[in-house]
Amino acid sequence: MNLPGTNTPLKVDRYQLQRDLDALAALTEPGKPWTRRSFTPMFLKGRDYLSKRFAEEGLSTSIDAAGNLIGRWQGMDASAPALMTGSHSDTVPSGGRFDGIAGILSGLAAIRAMREAGYTPKHSIDLVDFLAEEPSEWGLSCIGSRGMVGALAPDHLAMIGPDQERLDTAITRIGGDPARLGGKLHSDVAAFVEIHIEQGPVLEAEAIPLGVVSGIAGIARVRLRLEGEAGHAGTVPMNMRADAGMAMSRLLLSLRDAARSEAEKGRGHFTATIGVIKFEPNGANVVPGAAEAIVDIRAENDAAMDDYLAAIDTLAQNAATAEGCRVAATERLSRTFAVLCDQRLQGIIREAAEVHGLTTRPLASGAGHDAAFVARIAPAAMIFVPSKSGISHAPEEWTDTESIARAADVLALTLSTLDQKPLAPAA
Amino acid sequence: MNLPGTNTPLKVDRYQLQRDLDALAALTEPGKPWTRRSFTPMFLKGRDYLSKRFAEEGLSTSIDAAGNLIGRWQGMDASAPALMTGSHSDTVPSGGRFDGIAGILSGLAAIRAMREAGYTPKHSIDLVDFLAEEPSEWGLSCIGSRGMVGALAPDHLAMIGPDQERLDTAITRIGGDPARLGGKLHSDVAAFVEIHIEQGPVLEAEAIPLGVVSGIAGIARVRLRLEGEAGHAGTVPMNMRADAGMAMSRLLLSLRDAARSEAEKGRGHFTATIGVIKFEPNGANVVPGAAEAIVDIRAENDAAMDDYLAAIDTLAQNAATAEGCRVAATERLSRTFAVLCDQRLQGIIREAAEVHGLTTRPLASGAGHDAAFVARIAPAAMIFVPSKSGISHAPEEWTDTESIARAADVLALTLSTLDQKPLAPAA
Repeated sequence: MNLPGTNTPLKVDRYQLQRDLDALAALTEPGKPWTRRSFTPMFLKGRDYLSKRFAEEGLSTSIDAAGNLIGRWQGMDASAPALMTGSHSDTVPSGGRFDGIAGILSGLAAIRAMREAGYTPKHSIDLVDFLAEEPSEWGLSCIGSRGMVGALAPDHLAMIGPDQERLDTAITRIGGDPARLGGKLHSDVAAFVEIHIEQGPVLEAEAIPLGVVSGIAGIARVRLRLEGEAGHAGTVPMNMRADAGMAMSRLLLSLRDAARSEAEKGRGHFTATIGVIKFEPNGANVVPGAAEAIVDIRAENDAAMDDYLAAIDTLAQNAATAEGCRVAATERLSRTFAVLCDQRLQGIIREAAEVHGLTTRPLASGAGHDAAFVARIAPAAMIFVPSKSGISHAPEEWTDTESIARAADVLALTLSTLDQKPLAPAA
Repeated sequence: MNLPGTNTPLKVDRYQLQRDLDALAALTEPGKPWTRRSFTPMFLKGRDYLSKRFAEEGLSTSIDAAGNLIGRWQGMDASAPALMTGSHSDTVPSGGRFDGIAGILSGLAAIRAMREAGYTPKHSIDLVDFLAEEPSEWGLSCIGSRGMVGALAPDHLAMIGPDQERLDTAITRIGGDPARLGGKLHSDVAAFVEIHIEQGPVLEAEAIPLGVVSGIAGIARVRLRLEGEAGHAGTVPMNMRADAGMAMSRLLLSLRDAARSEAEKGRGHFTATIGVIKFEPNGANVVPGAAEAIVDIRAENDAAMDDYLAAIDTLAQNAATAEGCRVAATERLSRTFAVLCDQRLQGIIREAAEVHGLTTRPLASGAGHDAAFVARIAPAAMIFVPSKSGISHAPEEWTDTESIARAADVLALTLSTLDQKPLAPAA
């Protein structure tokens, strides 16, 4: 949509967006920026800020059964399904200023711009702060979006957090109603679009302002344990060793090489990362008798994940054998499947970006997001904005306000387009 | 020497040796076999046992200024320098039954056999239990042998252990006299021979009963730190990473390969071991931004050690560069130099073994020993006995009594040879 009476596409208020980003980010645990952990008093301060701002921009606020804060811009047609946008206001410990809140506040900026331009939507537009997207003290992430789509199981609700509090008790404390969870809370969603920082280096490296997310990667974790023979560092000759540390070093390099080949195959985004390692007994004067590591694998294509998971045993066996060691475990700790973003929504976002003169590129999300759960009840898509140096989940996380504002501009046009013309049937 | 009136070489009493090994090993911290930590009440129980046994075998016992327990078989010639043997009775926590005490009790067995055969030595023969050979709670090893040769500095004596006790206070508590430390306590030692378990797999693998130690390796420790760029495991593409964990994996393998080449050069025993590693920030979903490891290097030849230490920087640089990382540190934490065992003593030991029909092979010690310090004041040598599976410093440590007894047989003949014919001038 354009500014009233002009051919200039509607742009959001940069100054107000900046104020909102600064004010909400500033609500951090003192001495540990930037920290606003879900379920804490600081988190509730953040929600107070959001509720106040939602109300100031004319939205009616409520908290759904899963503890999600929702600001609704009531549409003219009460029977029409809602359009939804938003993200999350919680952070990891010592995280960044943008991860999460950029998606809520850009949604607020888009709605503010549309309202100020005198737009009256047919569909209601819901702006959501999903509860606890980051891994929480209860050991679970995406609690609000899981709850919204009926994916919070009784086992989840019984999980125990700080002070022995059950998760369902904590959700109640936040204003939710766990007794009503179990089915889908919002079956009347026409489309969902989430703006988020990329958390990776690609957009910055290619100087592209917006990423249109093609899909959200599936994630698997595999624990590896190789065993050799521990021995005295001084007395076991080099040619009589079964050094589990050397076997693990070989394995790490071969796992990485295999991930590189897969990533170059054109089957979409693929990564494998070993961030955790330990040698046993971990003594400077002992040849390692065992070595453990965890591989984190992300794949936009589930078949690529299948192939890689199937190859791990062989890679581990080869590395172990080359060093006279043995594979004690290749244990799959977890696996989720990839979620593809809605093709029609991706097209509408691309066209909206073109109207604003913004280049886009398709980009997979290697990180998990609430959108992956919302996709179970509605067509869903995401818009990524550049992260400086690709850094996230750290105090150095940075995205320019202008970058977020551009995504909000595109969101406003995307929402008005969707409001005026329902999505064509899915292909 | 032979059994009186026969051509049969003198053999030690296997049964008494077994009893002594069993009785002293049994003095262990309850529930934590086999533990007899220096300076503890259990250690003093061990010394009580040794004092009693020394006296039973006719030795006069005393404790020198460094806290070493010495049992002396007085020689006929009071002006002749003493012959010395022995080892240590302390253990590492949860160590083995033989490391240390095999060398004291085989010495006792040799003296017992010589006395029972009616031998009267010209030189006094000193049997020593060196204080605290293993790394102690004061952070220092070889306390007694350092003290004996004037290598306990005031800084050492001021080190603080459990209950804020200074090391000099602890030595006094054991019966030593720190005020008399500083110079050599025993300048009148003609030769020192120590029997010890090999703590490695070579003798067992080659089915050779005795190792004649050629030298005690110098030890160096180097801390390595490589830095790359931390990043989100899911969002940083494989081809845009600077993964410090991969750089470290490369470095470990190249350090090992370099050590293998050095070990094959014929410059003596050489090992390099990486037993300690960590990735930072050590999160399963984070590409490691930094990786640290400690290399333990042992070399019988100091020039080989020099060459290897000089090569580490280049190896680290190559590994880092190959992964787009940088070398943040190659820090030398410590270095000691190799100690060569006395060639003349090695020859006498080999000949004594031949008389007993025992094969020997030269073998370097990759572990540190009291003999390395005693070598500063006297010709010194060591005899190694096989360790089952090369295991030591663990409850599984095992050496057959017969293996230790054979070494004691050789020791008895070595001592009587040295007693009857002083060492030729050193080459």
